[in-house]
Amino acid sequence: MKFIRVLFLFSFLVQGAFGQAPGKYVMVIHGGAGTILKSSMTPEREKAYRDELTKALQAGYKLLKAGKPSLDAVEAAIRVMEDSPLFNAGKGAVFTNEGRNELDAAIMDGKSLAAGSVAGVTTIRNPISSARAVMEKSEHVMMVGAGAEKFAKEAGLEIVDPKYFWTEDRWKGLLKARRDDSVKNLQNKKGGLLGTGNHDYKFGTVGAVALDKNGNLAAGTSTGGMTNKKFGRVGDAPIIGAGTYANKLVGISCTGWGEFFIRNVVAHDVAALMEYKGLSVKDAANELIMKKVPNLGGDGGLIALDKDGNVAMPFNTAGMYRGTVTRDGKIEVLIYKD
Amino acid sequence: MKFIRVLFLFSFLVQGAFGQAPGKYVMVIHGGAGTILKSSMTPEREKAYRDELTKALQAGYKLLKAGKPSLDAVEAAIRVMEDSPLFNAGKGAVFTNEGRNELDAAIMDGKSLAAGSVAGVTTIRNPISSARAVMEKSEHVMMVGAGAEKFAKEAGLEIVDPKYFWTEDRWKGLLKARRDDSVKNLQNKKGGLLGTGNHDYKFGTVGAVALDKNGNLAAGTSTGGMTNKKFGRVGDAPIIGAGTYANKLVGISCTGWGEFFIRNVVAHDVAALMEYKGLSVKDAANELIMKKVPNLGGDGGLIALDKDGNVAMPFNTAGMYRGTVTRDGKIEVLIYKD
Repeated sequence: MKFIRVLFLFSFLVQGAFGQAPGKYVMVIHGGAGTILKSSMTPEREKAYRDELTKALQAGYKLLKAGKPSLDAVEAAIRVMEDSPLFNAGKGAVFTNEGRNELDAAIMDGKSLAAGSVAGVTTIRNPISSARAVMEKSEHVMMVGAGAEKFAKEAGLEIVDPKYFWTEDRWKGLLKARRDDSVKNLQNKKGGLLGTGNHDYKFGTVGAVALDKNGNLAAGTSTGGMTNKKFGRVGDAPIIGAGTYANKLVGISCTGWGEFFIRNVVAHDVAALMEYKGLSVKDAANELIMKKVPNLGGDGGLIALDKDGNVAMPFNTAGMYRGTVTRDGKIEVLIYKD
Repeated sequence: MKFIRVLFLFSFLVQGAFGQAPGKYVMVIHGGAGTILKSSMTPEREKAYRDELTKALQAGYKLLKAGKPSLDAVEAAIRVMEDSPLFNAGKGAVFTNEGRNELDAAIMDGKSLAAGSVAGVTTIRNPISSARAVMEKSEHVMMVGAGAEKFAKEAGLEIVDPKYFWTEDRWKGLLKARRDDSVKNLQNKKGGLLGTGNHDYKFGTVGAVALDKNGNLAAGTSTGGMTNKKFGRVGDAPIIGAGTYANKLVGISCTGWGEFFIRNVVAHDVAALMEYKGLSVKDAANELIMKKVPNLGGDGGLIALDKDGNVAMPFNTAGMYRGTVTRDGKIEVLIYKD
């Protein structure tokens, strides 16, 4: 009896240390979904991805462990991935048809429903931090283009020469996409003004969702959009409710064929299915990724973390770079369907 | 008995003519919510608004009556309001801090969940038509800035000199807003980068929702945003799920302080409350406009029309320019709290 009482006390203390039960997740990240096959991956490249995802998780976890808000953890993890050439966000962003890198990002605080977002920016080193500045230092939620860049500069963020975002891999990707696009346009009998339809040009977005010691959730997403994009196209990442959303119940970040995520208002729909229909985070996330998005013809994945530390990471593509960390610091990184 | 059978047959025929019961609504429009008081309105100005709203309703109704899709009716009604200097959309749009007119618009087809949107465009005479072109003639959903304008031109839309959007009333509004803004900035002790907080600079957006003979819904919204806006600010109007949304159940268009409508994902939340929680269109719309939006500190209104022809037009401001038309062609136009 005394033993049981001690065990109960011990378990209570452990839970108290991070505000929830051990083993529960406190952070989840993604580095994009797509045609990621083990057969076309070298061991070196796979290791590079695993190392970078681990580094991003550690950057966020360190802050959560120190009692910092979930917003800090989300921003820190995404900055690591933005600074890496491996992901389609920040350094490593894909090129537009005109050979530019146009970046989008959004962040949302689940507790206050405060949100910030930028789209079509070309000179901000870390778009996720400029999204946070829009949220915290302006009355606005969304800023686009040159105006967003002017604001970021006034807010004291690091501004870089657009050349900073140039990487050889992504440049080759654009050249290939332009060739494919030309062929597609010749074959396109529907007369549409845009002919691209290659899935692999649409992926690589990064995102994070975190749950802090006070039980508050935050979510963020950052992307270079799709290779060879034209006409100032904006995807779901910077759209609050589509690619990014957080409230008191759940935080969500999406990656995939953005147009289908906007039309399904995916991130908010996950939250609504949980709140109004009583679905679990897993069932709600699956409803979108395994049914609603593919039913319209789209593909991709998402990460979701609820207030109790339950996580969902569904994707309907071959793979999705993703990782989790639990309250006791255990890190898990996954790439393929495991 | 025979009489009852004839009556039943007659009622069936009447319903068949428009696909639903007589008296039900087939279209609802708004011309913006805000501090619209009878005491500060001249009879001439009130008549001008009533006439223009009536003209917009007639333009849409004519198409619905002829069996055209709801998308056509929404576009036609919004084009009338965009072409009028009375509303903050198209001709009549407010000025940005830099003295430009930057326009946003979105349209969505409830049946297919297809959607199109443009933001920050300065040369497209009818932004709602360019949003529709994005939806129907591209693979994308959202385009911003110069890219969106280039696409509109290639799609054959009417391009105008930015001077087309200049109106004396709106220019005076900007000069006043700049003066108020300067004063506000001097008084602003929080050190925020933006100091504007005048509600009346945020309103005047136009929108329409229609239900066609085949029972399909569509919704659209068009706006010049808020007077004196800076830094490429984008509001809720062009954000699918926030200011504009339609599915098979309901169509919604919002007007108000855009930032709060984005953070609440208002349009999609109305649809989610109806679909997942079983709320009526009135209760769902009220939940957002009378509770969720004001609870965060925002204000405005919305119009919503469900698949059975039920309408909701709540607003938490002094007034909202709005109007409805029923399946038998009865037009009603309202401005104040009646």
